[in-house]
Amino acid sequence: MTYDLYPSRTGSRPFVTKRQDPVIHTENPYEQSSPLSKEQLESYEKNGFLLLDSFFSEDETRSMRNEIEEMRREYSVSDRKEVIRELGTDEVRSIFAPHELNRYFKDLADDQRLQDITQFLLGSDVYIHQSRINYKEGFTGKEFYWHSDFETWHVEDGMPRMRAVSVSVLLTDNHVYNGPVMMIPGSHMHFVSCVGETPENHYEKSLQKQELGVPDNDNLRWLADQGGISVPTGKAGSILLFECNTMHGSNSNITPYGRNNIFLVYNSVKNRLVEPFSGGKPRPEYIAARQGIPVGQ
Amino acid sequence: MTYDLYPSRTGSRPFVTKRQDPVIHTENPYEQSSPLSKEQLESYEKNGFLLLDSFFSEDETRSMRNEIEEMRREYSVSDRKEVIRELGTDEVRSIFAPHELNRYFKDLADDQRLQDITQFLLGSDVYIHQSRINYKEGFTGKEFYWHSDFETWHVEDGMPRMRAVSVSVLLTDNHVYNGPVMMIPGSHMHFVSCVGETPENHYEKSLQKQELGVPDNDNLRWLADQGGISVPTGKAGSILLFECNTMHGSNSNITPYGRNNIFLVYNSVKNRLVEPFSGGKPRPEYIAARQGIPVGQ
Repeated sequence: MTYDLYPSRTGSRPFVTKRQDPVIHTENPYEQSSPLSKEQLESYEKNGFLLLDSFFSEDETRSMRNEIEEMRREYSVSDRKEVIRELGTDEVRSIFAPHELNRYFKDLADDQRLQDITQFLLGSDVYIHQSRINYKEGFTGKEFYWHSDFETWHVEDGMPRMRAVSVSVLLTDNHVYNGPVMMIPGSHMHFVSCVGETPENHYEKSLQKQELGVPDNDNLRWLADQGGISVPTGKAGSILLFECNTMHGSNSNITPYGRNNIFLVYNSVKNRLVEPFSGGKPRPEYIAARQGIPVGQ
Repeated sequence: MTYDLYPSRTGSRPFVTKRQDPVIHTENPYEQSSPLSKEQLESYEKNGFLLLDSFFSEDETRSMRNEIEEMRREYSVSDRKEVIRELGTDEVRSIFAPHELNRYFKDLADDQRLQDITQFLLGSDVYIHQSRINYKEGFTGKEFYWHSDFETWHVEDGMPRMRAVSVSVLLTDNHVYNGPVMMIPGSHMHFVSCVGETPENHYEKSLQKQELGVPDNDNLRWLADQGGISVPTGKAGSILLFECNTMHGSNSNITPYGRNNIFLVYNSVKNRLVEPFSGGKPRPEYIAARQGIPVGQ
């Protein structure tokens, strides 16, 4: 087994260690020609996330919105594993791996601009580690508690290093009040090791409500006291890039305004999954790709 | 029984009627000398709420903060009815009628500036209809769904007209991200009649989680599409005045930053409670005062 640089869910006490990986993996990034400006790179490197307002045109955004509604209808009564439903109701909460299910989302994952940015940030070819559509309804949108995606991907999927970046495509306007994702700036520089063990097939429940891999209150407060809490808001069509270890979460949404997005995780081909560090069996391919083909190929 | 101007929980369909009462009850308010500026009065009249930033000094605020912590300790294991606990845990969520339990909060309710403002808005002497301390913890703060306070006070307590104003004293900074109260500007001009009947002793549950007197999605969306959603934020020591019929609610709070406040409802002495319009028996005095003595007397 690979030596575990970022142990979590192994002890009875939470603890924090320093990040062991660069944030931007291209060497000397500020001296290269780059798809992001110097200010954007600096902001991403320092905060662990970057909002690019109105990245997609109104036409592109409208078309994506239609496609996700189409998919929701198509899968509303499906028993495919990729379809995650709300606890209590049967509403579709997420659809995993849309880029495998649907040509439209395959093309989106291959989008040249997204390729250029993610390849630059990760300093190599990239492939889709995970993708999903999130439908967050108005009135009853549930909260997502704070978490580092990397913590889960490392422990449950065997992602060895912090060399992945998520792209969240906002398909509805994100206001401060409709349950937008909240980020703790700078939190990506620390790894919060969580308490607890990971049971077999944990993902079957954790995709509805995460209860493991949850950071403790003291360390969360410490991170937030240092970095504050940022609420990136933007119009539909904006994208939010965030580093795989940035601590994030969202409050509930009682407003009438839902909040849908498409979530694409790009991982470096030099950071392919190994055995899960939990020692458990790997999660299925539609949640954590082991065979992912580099985008654009 | 008094004729019911604002019927609710009587039918099987929700509906909206126009407000039948003034918002500011002093006659010709803009021609009188007033404790609020013309702009403040206009804003309150139009939106149904008004934030007064840093209304209390830092010293006053610190002292209030100490007092509510003192009370929480004092009542942490009390079985007094005034103490409402969180569902699931035994944490104190609210303490009702602190102005009856404690001299300090009696003095706060009598505060000359609050008296002047509320008497002006309500055009008469005023008394405390309800008071409470709300402790909203960080990490696990629960949402409060949208509601008009007046709807409940009318149906369950027999408040005849819209002639009451709430003062929320912010004892912690309200940020956009820590579950602040959200208001629908202009919603106070409409009465949303809700569906459902009110069972006996409904309040014993509703104070933990409200499930009746809940506006329907279509009318909520209609109100929000007209008025938008406002998130008044402010420093500890600010007060938020809001009209008894303004639709408000709050999302959950997963941030480390709790949000405590003191809530004082001033009702006009000309708007004293009659029999509840539900036809049920009145709620207890500590939730809805029938005997309230005018403040300052």
